[in-house]
Amino acid sequence: MRFELLATDGDARRGRLHTAHGVLDTPVFMPVGTQASVKSLTPHDLEAAGARIVLGNTYHLFLRPGHEVVRELGGLHRFMGWSGAILTDSGGFQVWSLAKLRRITEDGVEFRAPLDGALRFLSPELAVEIQRALGSDIAMVLDECLAYPATARDTERSLARTLRWAERCRVAHAKAPGAQALFGIVQGGADPVLRMQATEATVALGFDGYAIGGMAVGEPKPTMYALTETVARGLPVDRPRYLMGVGKPQDLVECVARGVDMFDCVLPTRNARNGQAFTSTGPVTIKQARFIRDPAPLDAACACYTCRQFSRAYLRHLFVAEELLAYRLLTLHNVHFYLGLMAGMREAIAARAFEAFRARFSAGYAVSSADVPHETDPQRSEA
Amino acid sequence: MRFELLATDGDARRGRLHTAHGVLDTPVFMPVGTQASVKSLTPHDLEAAGARIVLGNTYHLFLRPGHEVVRELGGLHRFMGWSGAILTDSGGFQVWSLAKLRRITEDGVEFRAPLDGALRFLSPELAVEIQRALGSDIAMVLDECLAYPATARDTERSLARTLRWAERCRVAHAKAPGAQALFGIVQGGADPVLRMQATEATVALGFDGYAIGGMAVGEPKPTMYALTETVARGLPVDRPRYLMGVGKPQDLVECVARGVDMFDCVLPTRNARNGQAFTSTGPVTIKQARFIRDPAPLDAACACYTCRQFSRAYLRHLFVAEELLAYRLLTLHNVHFYLGLMAGMREAIAARAFEAFRARFSAGYAVSSADVPHETDPQRSEA
Repeated sequence: MRFELLATDGDARRGRLHTAHGVLDTPVFMPVGTQASVKSLTPHDLEAAGARIVLGNTYHLFLRPGHEVVRELGGLHRFMGWSGAILTDSGGFQVWSLAKLRRITEDGVEFRAPLDGALRFLSPELAVEIQRALGSDIAMVLDECLAYPATARDTERSLARTLRWAERCRVAHAKAPGAQALFGIVQGGADPVLRMQATEATVALGFDGYAIGGMAVGEPKPTMYALTETVARGLPVDRPRYLMGVGKPQDLVECVARGVDMFDCVLPTRNARNGQAFTSTGPVTIKQARFIRDPAPLDAACACYTCRQFSRAYLRHLFVAEELLAYRLLTLHNVHFYLGLMAGMREAIAARAFEAFRARFSAGYAVSSADVPHETDPQRSEA
Repeated sequence: MRFELLATDGDARRGRLHTAHGVLDTPVFMPVGTQASVKSLTPHDLEAAGARIVLGNTYHLFLRPGHEVVRELGGLHRFMGWSGAILTDSGGFQVWSLAKLRRITEDGVEFRAPLDGALRFLSPELAVEIQRALGSDIAMVLDECLAYPATARDTERSLARTLRWAERCRVAHAKAPGAQALFGIVQGGADPVLRMQATEATVALGFDGYAIGGMAVGEPKPTMYALTETVARGLPVDRPRYLMGVGKPQDLVECVARGVDMFDCVLPTRNARNGQAFTSTGPVTIKQARFIRDPAPLDAACACYTCRQFSRAYLRHLFVAEELLAYRLLTLHNVHFYLGLMAGMREAIAARAFEAFRARFSAGYAVSSADVPHETDPQRSEA
């Protein structure tokens, strides 16, 4: 994997990531395909929307269908029919947020699989092994996640373990060299000083790229922005930076402004299934009665299939009637919107006009009071 | 609407139906789009699969979003973004099979809408009015449906009412002439003599086409085939014949052999959502454990997107994981399979080789004991 930094504008970066499955222009948004499927969309839809990389989840694929099954069927790309790049999350966040009865020791995490109640164990080495079997282009280290808020002592302890696990992942990953990149994850809770130490220590271990983890877990938005800036400034300029599980459109703009290159989040896909569309003028709740007779497209500024072909009235009808097509058409639009937003940011940075873009976006994108965040929902995978 | 009979082979007919929204080659299968959506598919998918006509349901669209809303938004074609032809069922079957507390009088049917419990009333005249507002290419008369088995007396009474309602529909429809065709529906229960009388009486009223109703409601398969043959032989050769709510692939072949031109059924779409795929060698239940590691496509003889891109192992995984994409990919395949089967029959009839086609199909298509029919499920709409 090779990362080129093509341009900067303030802290915002325009880059290019070369993977074994194609070239990614950054800043990039990665749609979440937790169970080897970006919910309701085909690989063809994703390509047409401009996606070049999607996420898969180690935790989910380990439990079902099992990484050995995926390996046997030629790896995750072939299994899901996706020829673009894939990043796999390590499972740390999912064990923390989804599994019951987890017991964390220095070795790893023991948990009960929600599907069958069986006791399962995930270690740093196994997380690397699973991701190797899946054959993702970018693997993530296993990290220990931390609830917000946490005491200084808990944060320090957890960070120390995450760093030891990161080193074990690095060692395990180095044993079978290949095209797969490995990213470290900077944890450290909500304390800027600990975050700086975490950044330094993670960079000292040496990874192909660096993620900022433990965000969007309940902390106030200004805290998230400030911590992201702190960590990003401590990361090497020649490696990609990935902010995990974030976020809303305004978060993407604000965090690109702070030097982030890669994002993933379930919001465009999950919220589509809850009837929320992201548009150039702000989020829209499609089931509202005001759309019953509305012949206009979801977003007049959008060129996606949903906006070219269907009215808000029809989309509302589909959603209220619980038609499967509603989830698909709204997901298609939201993914298109997110990817279009990233493309707009890439252009603006290249033109050294990012501040104007940011101001224009902020002025045009109305966040209503209905747009209440559910920050404690797991946003790094969709079950 | 104009119908051309291009070729016959035995009782099987190869025809062409000219509608205001395109030309349909018959025998034709019409995917069911009950609530203005063929579940999980876009108009683009349907076109690509070869669909030229879909069904909409008066009953469902009357209740939600309401025919006035659809009229205001430019009619059903524009509302659902479908440029092909549309046939609308009249609501008779749905009131009978889905609504609670129905009270049938000579005027019409009073029923409680399942959605809000409100009392609603559907008459022959209103069924015509609703279908006019929807703007379908082919409207159906309101018929009274009959449970199977029924006494001779109940059957006669019900048939007499259906005929009176048919005449009222004809009169109401003639008041506002336009491009929309109106089809009569031959009822008459399971008695061949009554069916012959019903055929004669319905034809005497004079319609643009004739449907055979009240089939697949629990009667034995040989009875259904025999009654279809009886009715078809009594229908004028220059009008299209539509067998409502039937059926399985083998039923389509057997009823084309008996002179039917048009079919609709929820099986390809509903069964897809239940994990059943129709293939050239018979139905397949995708969740079976034998597919866990199966790299083969669903149907090696199929050229649909699902079969070109994905393995049985992946489709099984999606279905077991309850991924929305499973329903979509299986629906796409099943609709493709049904439409391909019709195309094969059209070719065979044109080549006067239908009997060879029928024998080949019957030999290759294995119906397992797991393929038990649920004949009492409403197959004329999907809620």
